[in-house]
Amino acid sequence: MSNPTAAVLVIGNEILSGRTQDTNSGTLARFLAPLGITLCEIRVVGDEQDEIVAALNALRARYTYVFTSGGIGPTHDDITADAVAAAFGVSISHHPEAMALLAERYAARGEDFNPMRQRMARIPDAASLIKNPVSVAPGFQLANVFVLAGVPSVLAAMLADLAPRLRRGAVMHSVTIAAPVAEGDIAAGLAALQQRFAEVSIGSYPYYRPEGYGVQLVARGISPEAVEAAAAGIEALLRSVGAQPVRL
Amino acid sequence: MSNPTAAVLVIGNEILSGRTQDTNSGTLARFLAPLGITLCEIRVVGDEQDEIVAALNALRARYTYVFTSGGIGPTHDDITADAVAAAFGVSISHHPEAMALLAERYAARGEDFNPMRQRMARIPDAASLIKNPVSVAPGFQLANVFVLAGVPSVLAAMLADLAPRLRRGAVMHSVTIAAPVAEGDIAAGLAALQQRFAEVSIGSYPYYRPEGYGVQLVARGISPEAVEAAAAGIEALLRSVGAQPVRL
Repeated sequence: MSNPTAAVLVIGNEILSGRTQDTNSGTLARFLAPLGITLCEIRVVGDEQDEIVAALNALRARYTYVFTSGGIGPTHDDITADAVAAAFGVSISHHPEAMALLAERYAARGEDFNPMRQRMARIPDAASLIKNPVSVAPGFQLANVFVLAGVPSVLAAMLADLAPRLRRGAVMHSVTIAAPVAEGDIAAGLAALQQRFAEVSIGSYPYYRPEGYGVQLVARGISPEAVEAAAAGIEALLRSVGAQPVRL
Repeated sequence: MSNPTAAVLVIGNEILSGRTQDTNSGTLARFLAPLGITLCEIRVVGDEQDEIVAALNALRARYTYVFTSGGIGPTHDDITADAVAAAFGVSISHHPEAMALLAERYAARGEDFNPMRQRMARIPDAASLIKNPVSVAPGFQLANVFVLAGVPSVLAAMLADLAPRLRRGAVMHSVTIAAPVAEGDIAAGLAALQQRFAEVSIGSYPYYRPEGYGVQLVARGISPEAVEAAAAGIEALLRSVGAQPVRL
């Protein structure tokens, strides 16, 4: 059985305006990799219901799992739950357990559990909750879609509750090798190695730093033996052009 | 005439594996905003021709401009130029000017202008070059698609050459106001302000830091007067709940 696949859908005008650097997609990428779930696509769309619905329906039809980030707070621009309900064509209402959790939180803090805060308990029908150990307001799972917070610390904290719900695949092994060499001097050799180790994905990432230029070479694959053999081939290639490889 | 729209297409397995944090989409977002070009969508796909072609064709049909990042180097995993040619259904060949630029660069450095390096001169027919003042290998423009490097410093340096080719729109003005207040205490007031200032987009972004929590409120719009009026409304709202607003 091949590995499960995934997409991330980041929702928020603040990313598109350049105000905020998205880091949630990277957090999810690093969360999924050791579970053997292949992240295939990331999309960022604004706070517009039609955009969210279209993107979500495209992604959930195509990938095993979709993880959304953002738009589940109490303010008028938090429209993700309604958009997800619309995408699935299901109704949405105040979820009793989410209402109880939030009522308890605000009572404990002496804060008003007002109608806008109650919006955070609006969950599409048939969805299950995802625990939020930071600020209580839950995420939710509906079929293969996992709806998570946009605040990075809250999104990260939600992952513990959803990890057990995911089917795992074969974990990708990877080796990264750096050397102070020009990419073009090893490109033909790398292409030959890629041909020889078809089950390993070999990536080449040049860098330019004040102290000099170089390249990081990444071999990734499911078989540790194949990855190691490809890595050894890369090291031999680097030495053949007079460069000293360093494993990172 | 409404503002031009744009999408960013980031190409690279290293983003999806979680190895590299994409920052190019943020660079492009901050480049486009002051030009009055509305960034509507960001996508990240892997180094797979079919994926790149499908995403590019969806985005270039929909938005005024598409900016791609990554995959234009000399190695086997650099397939963006061929994918763009395939998406447009045009042929691709070694561009004479790009060949001359690169030949000169490698001659000056005493490096071999080998066939893999010559791949960087492969440009779809009818495309125009985009100057690369950092490492010479050019980007290119084909119709409404701008193909840029993946190395952040190179991508940033290419923007100067393409800026004059873009139609500009009305610039969005924005005011950001921070206050140590719970989002839920001002959410109803914010919703009322959003209703009142329909031409201004009001966003609410909570934060949780070791020193305490709070919210950043952003008013964005084309009319400076409307943005300022909405900002004044936000400040009055914050004072009405006992919080001291700070403009950032």
